[in-house]
Amino acid sequence: MPRPSSGQVIFQPMGRRADAQPKQNLLQLALHAGVGLEAPCGGKGLCGKCRVRPDGPASPPTPAETALLGQDTQAGMRLACQTSMPQGGPVWVPPESRQHRQVILTSGQSGELELDQTVRSYQVHVPPPRLEEPEAGRERLFAALAQSAGERLNPPPRLPLGLLRQLPLHLARDNGRLSVALRNGHEIVALGPAQDGPPLGLAVDLGTTTVVAYLCDLDSGQLLAVSSEMNPQVPYGDDVISRISCCAADPADLAKLSRAAVECINTLAQEACAQAGVDPSRILECVIVGNSAMHHIFLALDPASLAAAPYAPLVRGPVEVKARQAGLALGPEAWLYWLPLKAGFVGADIVAAALAVGADQIEEPTLLLDLGTNGEMVLAAHGRMMACSTAAGPALEGGHIGQGMRGAPGAVERVSMEPGAARASLRVIGNQRPVGFCGSGLVSLISCLLETGLLNSNGGFDQHRAKGLVRPGAQGPEFVAAPAADTGHGRDLALTSQDVAEVQLAKAAIRAGAEVLMAEMGIERLSRVLLAGAFGNYLDPWEASRLGLFPPVPVECIQGVGNAAGVGAVMSLLSRRQRLRAGDMARSMGYVELSGHPLFQDLFVDSMAFPPGQPGEEL
Amino acid sequence: MPRPSSGQVIFQPMGRRADAQPKQNLLQLALHAGVGLEAPCGGKGLCGKCRVRPDGPASPPTPAETALLGQDTQAGMRLACQTSMPQGGPVWVPPESRQHRQVILTSGQSGELELDQTVRSYQVHVPPPRLEEPEAGRERLFAALAQSAGERLNPPPRLPLGLLRQLPLHLARDNGRLSVALRNGHEIVALGPAQDGPPLGLAVDLGTTTVVAYLCDLDSGQLLAVSSEMNPQVPYGDDVISRISCCAADPADLAKLSRAAVECINTLAQEACAQAGVDPSRILECVIVGNSAMHHIFLALDPASLAAAPYAPLVRGPVEVKARQAGLALGPEAWLYWLPLKAGFVGADIVAAALAVGADQIEEPTLLLDLGTNGEMVLAAHGRMMACSTAAGPALEGGHIGQGMRGAPGAVERVSMEPGAARASLRVIGNQRPVGFCGSGLVSLISCLLETGLLNSNGGFDQHRAKGLVRPGAQGPEFVAAPAADTGHGRDLALTSQDVAEVQLAKAAIRAGAEVLMAEMGIERLSRVLLAGAFGNYLDPWEASRLGLFPPVPVECIQGVGNAAGVGAVMSLLSRRQRLRAGDMARSMGYVELSGHPLFQDLFVDSMAFPPGQPGEEL
Repeated sequence: MPRPSSGQVIFQPMGRRADAQPKQNLLQLALHAGVGLEAPCGGKGLCGKCRVRPDGPASPPTPAETALLGQDTQAGMRLACQTSMPQGGPVWVPPESRQHRQVILTSGQSGELELDQTVRSYQVHVPPPRLEEPEAGRERLFAALAQSAGERLNPPPRLPLGLLRQLPLHLARDNGRLSVALRNGHEIVALGPAQDGPPLGLAVDLGTTTVVAYLCDLDSGQLLAVSSEMNPQVPYGDDVISRISCCAADPADLAKLSRAAVECINTLAQEACAQAGVDPSRILECVIVGNSAMHHIFLALDPASLAAAPYAPLVRGPVEVKARQAGLALGPEAWLYWLPLKAGFVGADIVAAALAVGADQIEEPTLLLDLGTNGEMVLAAHGRMMACSTAAGPALEGGHIGQGMRGAPGAVERVSMEPGAARASLRVIGNQRPVGFCGSGLVSLISCLLETGLLNSNGGFDQHRAKGLVRPGAQGPEFVAAPAADTGHGRDLALTSQDVAEVQLAKAAIRAGAEVLMAEMGIERLSRVLLAGAFGNYLDPWEASRLGLFPPVPVECIQGVGNAAGVGAVMSLLSRRQRLRAGDMARSMGYVELSGHPLFQDLFVDSMAFPPGQPGEEL
Repeated sequence: MPRPSSGQVIFQPMGRRADAQPKQNLLQLALHAGVGLEAPCGGKGLCGKCRVRPDGPASPPTPAETALLGQDTQAGMRLACQTSMPQGGPVWVPPESRQHRQVILTSGQSGELELDQTVRSYQVHVPPPRLEEPEAGRERLFAALAQSAGERLNPPPRLPLGLLRQLPLHLARDNGRLSVALRNGHEIVALGPAQDGPPLGLAVDLGTTTVVAYLCDLDSGQLLAVSSEMNPQVPYGDDVISRISCCAADPADLAKLSRAAVECINTLAQEACAQAGVDPSRILECVIVGNSAMHHIFLALDPASLAAAPYAPLVRGPVEVKARQAGLALGPEAWLYWLPLKAGFVGADIVAAALAVGADQIEEPTLLLDLGTNGEMVLAAHGRMMACSTAAGPALEGGHIGQGMRGAPGAVERVSMEPGAARASLRVIGNQRPVGFCGSGLVSLISCLLETGLLNSNGGFDQHRAKGLVRPGAQGPEFVAAPAADTGHGRDLALTSQDVAEVQLAKAAIRAGAEVLMAEMGIERLSRVLLAGAFGNYLDPWEASRLGLFPPVPVECIQGVGNAAGVGAVMSLLSRRQRLRAGDMARSMGYVELSGHPLFQDLFVDSMAFPPGQPGEEL
């Protein structure tokens, strides 16, 4: 490993360098160096995901690191967000810490994305008025801008009153040299000193649980920073239905939940800007994606119609408003663009994900699956698309499961078990004692139980084989994954028959939805399954297909696509063409309302059983 | 005179009727009946202009009436704004009380104006979402609107967030029946109950001294009410230059003066709406005209560049912004449209006046003259136009005159004097004892003095003829128009040589400006002079031309055109074509900057003398 020059941090194996800054931690430096580190907690020392191994003098470990890293501290592991290396030095980034979300930077997609920004900045030189025919300041600005932009600008662009009021200062400062940000060729959205920094954009994935913001340089298209937070609406309800009910009684509640989401995005914008060392007022364009409920609640639109048949949203097409009108504190004249929804339960997030994977150009039958409380999915084939949403329920996120939990420290995220072993081996988020199952842990455990024969394809525990591992519980037999002595709460960690049934209901809904789409499109076999969203990313493809979560497909054709919704949001931020393409996709995409579909109920019942598969073979 | 049916007030000689309302005064009833009464004070009992003679039982005279009407009360005269006739009856409106301003209602122009409104309202019926393919509320609204409007509406109109938030209520209220106000076919600016009243518009003439607001029904084009107030900026300076200086030192001062103008228009909107019994939130479009300084200060734009060579405004073309952004409290989504300026001292008011008189279609050489602190003028001929602004100074408004004053009660407004008479006969506003000269009184007095030979064409008093009437004063000879015993302040009311010189400077500037325009356009003789603005309206054409205020023209070809700027504002409110035409006129109009013009100085000096005219002949 080459030694870096003094005062530089070098991230390995990428070989990316950043100047050591005593006040910047390794997570921040990694970002400057263009190295994406996993940091779902937003660099707060909570998730334990940004592990790195410094190879040189570093700041002493913090209590958060001691708690989250456990034994790994002795192997030299540290959390990047808690560690600084004032004198520089090499830092090893293990594969599990590398960010897979940041496809814009790391995948081939960024290279393919042709920039076509909504907001472009121009350097202009506005001459003083001539004595013979003194032209007005605004009109001289328009003429200078037309010259710089090489366009006629007819009709002249709008110049908002707030900017017009500042114009004399800008004209006076530097002999009429200034920078102008022009949106879509017809509205000036910022004036600044000449050679001012580039206009910035913010793409936001407003998830029910997690909100992620991507800060981009609109001139270069470069991703400058990523910040994320838990959605502050979570205390008002875990799933979209409870959030909607929370808003139904009183307009003040809707305003409160709206405000929470808006303030969360304002905070994320500030955090991302702090990381990148820029001012949030330079953000001139914001694209948000999210499901229909997040969309309505964020915009303070009554979401009641989303929760009752026929589940029509209040608005479906794109919503384009001044960002300040929605309460966002970005540039004073910044615009907000919400990508379109497809239907009441097929939101802008799935439209964005479809954009990210280029679903309109997919030839071979491909299922794009966004797993969450609602399993939203798009089946794409031969340039056609069809979407549906299944009321999968929260089981796959750990909800409605006796000892289920979200993917937070203490959650079992992976289970392995040798046939005939006396107990399961658990991988727990944060390397702690286990306290519950998150979605991927649940899928992993059930897949183990099926593989070892402890669970049969009807979801019943094999009392004979499971002897000693399965015991009678209050609601029937249950499997003890960890005894009380080993858990974080001092109680047995167990999976009940009821839990298995909840998972069966969820996976049957998803699979039946996929099969209805296949029937509608006349497709007999899938070529590919793309798993989108955080949960899809953590899911093991083999385990997921072992459960029969989707129709049979070779396991190597199951692929996590990261936060595809976030990628689609960034694409729409950086390119008008992609934004319009998303709109075209939302319009041309077919939609099946499963609750009224004649095939759905039978397919749902047929999908309750787990597949009787054998290890290694196609499921 | 036919007796009206009981409970009706009938205005004579027009024969217009209105139902008597105990709580409405005769001024308000006249408005309902479509009878325009002079009321420059806005119906506050201050100006004494709205004189009428009730012929039936009326409310007892108020102290304001006793003060303003004097002897006339005994002849049965009353002020319409102070008088009610709960039982109805005939009311005589003398010619001097009839409003000449209200050309929109009373002149032929209203008949010629083809309505082509910016905002149109539609009744729509939005069906509920269909079960099979549930369409979103906004998109169903757009489809219903396209059907009602008979247009494709592609791209779909904007629906501001504030209105989108209200949409569920509107859709729920009356089975989806509602009224929609659409602006320029591309933005919805109001939603209301089905069969809601028409959208309203407000046209404002923001004068340096007086602000007049015209409330119109945008569906019918009908004028519903007029309200006016003194510009609350007057305490900060009488003329535009002192207002500009007042803003120059501190941005807070600009904000203060801006706020004053904005609040004045808000008040006028409320007053006009109260008269018409409508809510100001139904005003969806507002057009304002005014001079360049009023324009900049209202919009809180730094007016400094207007006051220094080369006198370039900050913005010249139309300013079109949401009314609320400028601080106006009208409909929440109402738009404000400021007509364009031509130059730093040729404002939107003169552009509007040019529109009102159709200057772009005038064939015979016509001078449109707006007399005020700045004599702004447009020379129109053969479809061409050329404008200039002369620094006439405030003399013609009574400023810089020893005993000058504005046209308020106590001001001498007309003077007559038989040759050889021992003293002048004065007409005083409000029938009071005289306290000063307003502009028209000054012109009238000087014209008398010239006619009687007491003043020679060089502006010198003829000591011989004027014996006994002219006496030595501190600054040379002066003419006593009224002795101390007859005046309101107990001092002689006198016109000094200095005062005459001030008037000479003012009229020379105006006349020289007009002659420069004629030279520029190659015109040797005027066919017509149009006097715009309040002062122009009060000026006697013969007297004005006796002073040589403008190049020679037959006296019958001199015409007051009332508040032409206000008329132009209303035309621009009611018709997009007229609004665009005003823009075309502002662009195509030539502009001469007099301060740099080679002819101006000589013409100015040549114009100092009064014409040596004889009564009755062309001057």
